[in-house]
Amino acid sequence: MLILHHHPMSAASRFVRLVLGEYGERAELVEERPWERRPEFLALNPAATLPILTEDRSVSIVGGTVVAEYLDETRGAFQRERRLLAEKPAERAEIRRLVEWFLGKMDAEVTRYLVRERVFKREMRSNEGGGAPDASAIRAARTNLKNHMRYIGWLAESRNWLSGPRLSYADFAGAAAVSILDYLGEVAWEEEPAAKEWYMRIKSRPSFRPFLAERVRGVPPAAHYAELDF
Amino acid sequence: MLILHHHPMSAASRFVRLVLGEYGERAELVEERPWERRPEFLALNPAATLPILTEDRSVSIVGGTVVAEYLDETRGAFQRERRLLAEKPAERAEIRRLVEWFLGKMDAEVTRYLVRERVFKREMRSNEGGGAPDASAIRAARTNLKNHMRYIGWLAESRNWLSGPRLSYADFAGAAAVSILDYLGEVAWEEEPAAKEWYMRIKSRPSFRPFLAERVRGVPPAAHYAELDF
Repeated sequence: MLILHHHPMSAASRFVRLVLGEYGERAELVEERPWERRPEFLALNPAATLPILTEDRSVSIVGGTVVAEYLDETRGAFQRERRLLAEKPAERAEIRRLVEWFLGKMDAEVTRYLVRERVFKREMRSNEGGGAPDASAIRAARTNLKNHMRYIGWLAESRNWLSGPRLSYADFAGAAAVSILDYLGEVAWEEEPAAKEWYMRIKSRPSFRPFLAERVRGVPPAAHYAELDF
Repeated sequence: MLILHHHPMSAASRFVRLVLGEYGERAELVEERPWERRPEFLALNPAATLPILTEDRSVSIVGGTVVAEYLDETRGAFQRERRLLAEKPAERAEIRRLVEWFLGKMDAEVTRYLVRERVFKREMRSNEGGGAPDASAIRAARTNLKNHMRYIGWLAESRNWLSGPRLSYADFAGAAAVSILDYLGEVAWEEEPAAKEWYMRIKSRPSFRPFLAERVRGVPPAAHYAELDF
């Protein structure tokens, strides 16, 4: 049995949920608030990051990219044309570069900041880092987001899917990050039509459906968030 | 032919050089100063991070972990007992978790700060972020380093190599980060004897030798840096 420790506002967690959905795998979801540093959570992952996938209560796989490799080795490799990593090493490297881009660089420059300032700080106690949002951090993240959306638009314009001709992990890592920012109403879709068209294609997949009904306490989604044609 | 864009003070770059050395591969080294943002460098990697491996001038592989996966697929898989990634998915996941730990978490909490403040700022112009070192950043990184060395000590004490019974990518990622901090004289070896014993074993490998002779302009290494028995 699979158990996923996740948070709905963690891009790496959403990425893994999408991959599990694409591969037809069900996981029990345990919502984790990393800033609370529960001892059982730290025992699974001393880095206190999400997600963590446990299989049959014996194996713990830590981190979005590491879980994705594990799922490729234990599921994807047997999926033929539905596999989300390519076969050729150079194509695999391009997919991994983009996964790192969305879950590493974009997370550090945009997603993590906006989620922390606009969502997590509302739930954190003051000794956990809670308090009023930091307006300058939000401003910096919004400026960075424009560059990231432009990059997604450029990829979507020059390729069929973000990493090349075929749907891959890169699309789900990108869509995971974008879906959180879209929930928060941060994405200026009118500025990036190619990115919008790409996101609509991902958003209409069955693996995406659970996200559209999810709500974060005290933070309602943007009006168009759940619409497939927005 | 392999070309590696690297910097001697980048842990991910040293990690890849160690892996290439272990697999008996030669690469032409191109030293890159990421803060200069050379157009040719940005064309290879818009994220402006190191390392970048190019093979036969056609394929560019970006980032330490992504290069390591590529080298496993194109070299490691044929190395039998000298392979640096395990065969079993769960063991591979533990190796990858530790590589992420050293090149991601430890880099963000320790290595990158100390290198930036003590090395890069000397070379950067003021419009590139140069200037006097930030004493509070150095202090915070040094505090974090104690925790990271304790974790390495704990791993070295409870396992033969950092990820388990066999030498793996985890050891080379850890040693890459530690070697930079050791060059800068930041490691309190007397506090972590198990970590020291592990590092001595890695340091005496032929793949490590090139580092011992390397010098960074204007920043001499700690007195014991090049000694195998320190």
